[in-house]
Amino acid sequence: MSNSFGEIFRLTTFGESHGKGIGGVIDGCPPRVLVDVKSIGNELARRRPGQSGITTSRRESDEVEFLSGLYEGKTTGTPIAFIVRNEDSHSSDYAEISQKFRPSHADYTYQVKYGLRDPRGGGRSSARETVARCVAGAVAKQILRSQGIEIRGYTSQVGKVRLEGTYEAYDLSVTETNAVRCPDVVKALEMESLIKEVQADGDTVGGIVTCVIMGVPAGVGEPVFDKLQATLARAMLSINAAKGFDYGDGFDAPLYSGSQHNDVFLNDQGTIRTKTNYSGGIQGGISNGETIYFRVAFKAVATVLKEQETVTLTGTPTTLKVKGRHDPCVLPRAVPVVEAMAAITILDFLLRQKMYVE
Amino acid sequence: MSNSFGEIFRLTTFGESHGKGIGGVIDGCPPRVLVDVKSIGNELARRRPGQSGITTSRRESDEVEFLSGLYEGKTTGTPIAFIVRNEDSHSSDYAEISQKFRPSHADYTYQVKYGLRDPRGGGRSSARETVARCVAGAVAKQILRSQGIEIRGYTSQVGKVRLEGTYEAYDLSVTETNAVRCPDVVKALEMESLIKEVQADGDTVGGIVTCVIMGVPAGVGEPVFDKLQATLARAMLSINAAKGFDYGDGFDAPLYSGSQHNDVFLNDQGTIRTKTNYSGGIQGGISNGETIYFRVAFKAVATVLKEQETVTLTGTPTTLKVKGRHDPCVLPRAVPVVEAMAAITILDFLLRQKMYVE
Amino acid sequence: MSNSFGEIFRLTTFGESHGKGIGGVIDGCPPRVLVDVKSIGNELARRRPGQSGITTSRRESDEVEFLSGLYEGKTTGTPIAFIVRNEDSHSSDYAEISQKFRPSHADYTYQVKYGLRDPRGGGRSSARETVARCVAGAVAKQILRSQGIEIRGYTSQVGKVRLEGTYEAYDLSVTETNAVRCPDVVKALEMESLIKEVQADGDTVGGIVTCVIMGVPAGVGEPVFDKLQATLARAMLSINAAKGFDYGDGFDAPLYSGSQHNDVFLNDQGTIRTKTNYSGGIQGGISNGETIYFRVAFKAVATVLKEQETVTLTGTPTTLKVKGRHDPCVLPRAVPVVEAMAAITILDFLLRQKMYVE
Amino acid sequence: MSNSFGEIFRLTTFGESHGKGIGGVIDGCPPRVLVDVKSIGNELARRRPGQSGITTSRRESDEVEFLSGLYEGKTTGTPIAFIVRNEDSHSSDYAEISQKFRPSHADYTYQVKYGLRDPRGGGRSSARETVARCVAGAVAKQILRSQGIEIRGYTSQVGKVRLEGTYEAYDLSVTETNAVRCPDVVKALEMESLIKEVQADGDTVGGIVTCVIMGVPAGVGEPVFDKLQATLARAMLSINAAKGFDYGDGFDAPLYSGSQHNDVFLNDQGTIRTKTNYSGGIQGGISNGETIYFRVAFKAVATVLKEQETVTLTGTPTTLKVKGRHDPCVLPRAVPVVEAMAAITILDFLLRQKMYVE
Repeated sequence: MSNSFGEIFRLTTFGESHGKGIGGVIDGCPPRVLVDVKSIGNELARRRPGQSGITTSRRESDEVEFLSGLYEGKTTGTPIAFIVRNEDSHSSDYAEISQKFRPSHADYTYQVKYGLRDPRGGGRSSARETVARCVAGAVAKQILRSQGIEIRGYTSQVGKVRLEGTYEAYDLSVTETNAVRCPDVVKALEMESLIKEVQADGDTVGGIVTCVIMGVPAGVGEPVFDKLQATLARAMLSINAAKGFDYGDGFDAPLYSGSQHNDVFLNDQGTIRTKTNYSGGIQGGISNGETIYFRVAFKAVATVLKEQETVTLTGTPTTLKVKGRHDPCVLPRAVPVVEAMAAITILDFLLRQKMYVE
Repeated sequence: MSNSFGEIFRLTTFGESHGKGIGGVIDGCPPRVLVDVKSIGNELARRRPGQSGITTSRRESDEVEFLSGLYEGKTTGTPIAFIVRNEDSHSSDYAEISQKFRPSHADYTYQVKYGLRDPRGGGRSSARETVARCVAGAVAKQILRSQGIEIRGYTSQVGKVRLEGTYEAYDLSVTETNAVRCPDVVKALEMESLIKEVQADGDTVGGIVTCVIMGVPAGVGEPVFDKLQATLARAMLSINAAKGFDYGDGFDAPLYSGSQHNDVFLNDQGTIRTKTNYSGGIQGGISNGETIYFRVAFKAVATVLKEQETVTLTGTPTTLKVKGRHDPCVLPRAVPVVEAMAAITILDFLLRQKMYVE
Repeated sequence: MSNSFGEIFRLTTFGESHGKGIGGVIDGCPPRVLVDVKSIGNELARRRPGQSGITTSRRESDEVEFLSGLYEGKTTGTPIAFIVRNEDSHSSDYAEISQKFRPSHADYTYQVKYGLRDPRGGGRSSARETVARCVAGAVAKQILRSQGIEIRGYTSQVGKVRLEGTYEAYDLSVTETNAVRCPDVVKALEMESLIKEVQADGDTVGGIVTCVIMGVPAGVGEPVFDKLQATLARAMLSINAAKGFDYGDGFDAPLYSGSQHNDVFLNDQGTIRTKTNYSGGIQGGISNGETIYFRVAFKAVATVLKEQETVTLTGTPTTLKVKGRHDPCVLPRAVPVVEAMAAITILDFLLRQKMYVE
Repeated sequence: MSNSFGEIFRLTTFGESHGKGIGGVIDGCPPRVLVDVKSIGNELARRRPGQSGITTSRRESDEVEFLSGLYEGKTTGTPIAFIVRNEDSHSSDYAEISQKFRPSHADYTYQVKYGLRDPRGGGRSSARETVARCVAGAVAKQILRSQGIEIRGYTSQVGKVRLEGTYEAYDLSVTETNAVRCPDVVKALEMESLIKEVQADGDTVGGIVTCVIMGVPAGVGEPVFDKLQATLARAMLSINAAKGFDYGDGFDAPLYSGSQHNDVFLNDQGTIRTKTNYSGGIQGGISNGETIYFRVAFKAVATVLKEQETVTLTGTPTTLKVKGRHDPCVLPRAVPVVEAMAAITILDFLLRQKMYVE
């Protein structure tokens, strides 16, 4: 069951980097939704390799084929299966890798866990798996949008270049105007320069994605183990290369005293709201109607074009210099994946909340 | 199902702060384990209120009563139910709270979600719920210990006072010798002073718990959505007042290039190991045999003994000054809870891993 | 998770025959329900041992203690835990049984599965576990009743004495007027005589429970693996001593041709209904608005007061003559258990169906 | 989640009768299994339409395409996705059906549940969905066979023609030698004649499948709600047209007294076994090492080639005479589906049992 996510709107993904394709099955999608195929294509385009000079040059057209669950363009309430076929797979690139473990990749751990592995492009452990999440996320986003819920992710840090302000300081519509997906155009240029510099050196760099969810009504999320932030954290840490998650004031929270960062309630023209939003829109695991925001830290891509020490399958020390096409920085392409997982999470909780209504 | 955690070793908790007690049911505990009641008592003592001058003065003896699942002291493979009865509940303290929402507590969100709530001490949203996690965690720890796995949490930051080194810089056996549970005795004194200062001001302060898991064999964890770090993140963010989670170099990862923080493999006297451990013992969601370590950020306790603005149930602006006994800092008591959730998570994955063995 | 049932309204049970008690946790009960404690008591009284001359003389007052989830008598949406303490447990009766396997009991299979077992009264495998189902079922029934749904079980066969008509032939309000719970008073006397006869001989006898569910709206149930009948079948076969389940014309279905037993649709004063109801109110796994009915076959109780061959723990042939107090026929007490499981199943599906409503 | 089955070896199916195809995803299949594609083909051939004169003339080649989870012919432990493309779909046949509800089909209930439906061939409610179960069942069977476990289903009743003996009375290798899959060649001819007679009349007939599972070790199955028989019952009642399930002496159990049908234990050359097997190989929900056997009753196929009364979408009375190609009797093709679900169930429990082993 480790390949499934969600309690009611439940996505199961399948597929490997260099197998036939990456796909998924969505069980529990509400019926009678007219699926906007174009908006799915847009999300895939945002995640697609080769979209700019700072992403891998692997070419994938990433066309989604729906296998079930739609009739005359509408969801029927039955499982929606889909596949995005792989095209540009150079399996020959991976002969050496089948015999040596790439540092900080999943080669070694898969080998130990399963006693074998598909070495072609990392097989199941490849970030190409996230294409399925973007398809499901696009469907979820569409349903959320009809409920007035919008999700906006952006790159807030690359290497040491970081945005100092919170999401409220930026015009998030700017995000998609540059290759790094940063709402601050000046910082965006700095980030892009840094990525190109690192790339020229055959190296890679990490960063942080900030994600903002607007319009979630109060009362969404479940207590105790399925707190909204707990499920978002699981969702985000399930993304390849993610190293951390926090929400609201997050890791800065220890710097505030209780009286400083408590979000006091006020009556805003008949609506109960909070004066500040250190809580990140979540209290006790349940949304309070304010904007939800969180951060996800990503490490630098493990594939560097430099010679590295490693060992063979049998433990003999050796060196490895990976060739091929890889992202110098995962950030721009991670933004739509973060948004997709947020969309799936929020929609699932919205559907769970229906249980409480008479 | 939001009150359950784990796939095979599955804990379901129940109970409210001022109801009859807090309890749980463990389904899927391996049979034939001689339960060490004393070690469970020790864990509860570490979480118990009133254990030192920097915790709440609420008195609870926190005696656990096992209701099922044991025979002649051993687990039988059937559900282990238990309850820790509440004793020191002053429900009269909570009359005002039933009519006003405490800032940054779950009062408002529970009210919206369910259309009613148990106002006594926060009801189900109280951190008293974590006593059940400590019972289950103590059982899990005992089983893990028999497999050579040890879990050690400690306070690494309170307010601005922080440990600069990683876990390797400290003697973790020192942790339990001071009230804040910090392995650096000098910093521990600073932290304790800060907490007392904040307490004297009727205020509260947050901090960070670092947790270290030693002895987990390679191959534990599941790919994609149940990555080891994803499940640990969910586990930790499900703890009251937790605001963030990261593992390995976490939120510092963006500061390293790929070639700097890749953990290259080497052959250590016949065992494949990594030279460094930026990965925090996890690669591709699966343990690689190195030490697992992660951090959990906690905000300051929301209950401050100062007057705060808020609104009534019907949205009328008012003020609230909470009386009563509360923790000035959650950190010392959060350490055993973090460890308990880590223990439950690791044991569950160890049991899941049995499926792959022939 | 094998001790849990239900997807949204989820019951987890715990406890052994001669341990501290039998209890359960209901997660996912709708909030704001005023729990009718008296109706729970009534259901427990229907299941209680010693209620008549044809049930075991074991005496249990079966008082339920609620441990959580209620505030001022109402459900709060948080887990409802409860326990029914054991009272009349003569553990000394079971010394011999700890060394010998009782034929057609679960002694041998538990021993093999877990490597140990609680021999006192069958431990977890005792039908006393069903008391927890009756508590949860009573809560479910109350909610269903508010939605116009009624569940009526009755004994339709004991040994060879059987009712020939379907449920429509009987006045089901008669059921509770006799000790066997049969709506045909003449047959009830025959059944009672048969049970007493068998009892006098130190033997036991089985039978069939028929259960009728009225008022379920069309559209309840899920396709494919969670068909309404599939989940009812699982629910019923999970009851101790149950040997079979069928619904509608069930095992008689093969005797009808398609054209004979198809339920043709008609317009009944504006409502789409079926002329006949061979389908038992379910088509394609989903309710069609007609009355749901099904049967559950029960074997004779395995505990007979006669000497039987068996083997010891180590496989040595021996004989066993069980003493003690046991039911000569499980049927009268099985009726409320069947109803309880039906109630839990239907309520869970009703809550799941809310997902599809806009 | 209603389209998923199994806790560890978990099958999720998708697809509609006249969509692109029927497929599935197996999550949790053990790694390192060399998949025997030919044996999968054999199972699909047993379920395939058009295999004999007494099955529908719809032609499907039923070629399975694996989409993921295999590398060099072996399972890798990652999800195994597959699809069987639809070929012979005459969607034009279904124009009338989109406006009228076919009696005893799922047209009406799907329409009510979802507010829309795919009318082509019954869409998701078509028994064509079971092709995915046969693929997964074939994989499961292969793994079971390597553990010495064999599953054998056969037709034991068609209309009034029934086998009188239990499974022990027949040579089950005879089953596959005739079109009805009956191990008694004389009865097989009677059954075949009956089916042809019914078919000539444009009508349909039901029957019973008996299934035998040999070689399951003692200790398999989980107590309380996941009893082996409970899960088998759910599995079987989830098959289209199934109306009942019983195991061991099943619905005949009430005819035996406890002393008659208790299965006494004996020592069979060092192995603890039972003298008789009325229990059907299961005691307390757990296998006891004896042969498991059960029955599944199937109703006559709802599609008859006769004019029937019905109503339109809006409730107007009308008549309907279905044209097209349909099975006169589901039995021969139901046998491999029953076996497939049994295989999936048993394998899942075998994997769950690994948890208890040290």
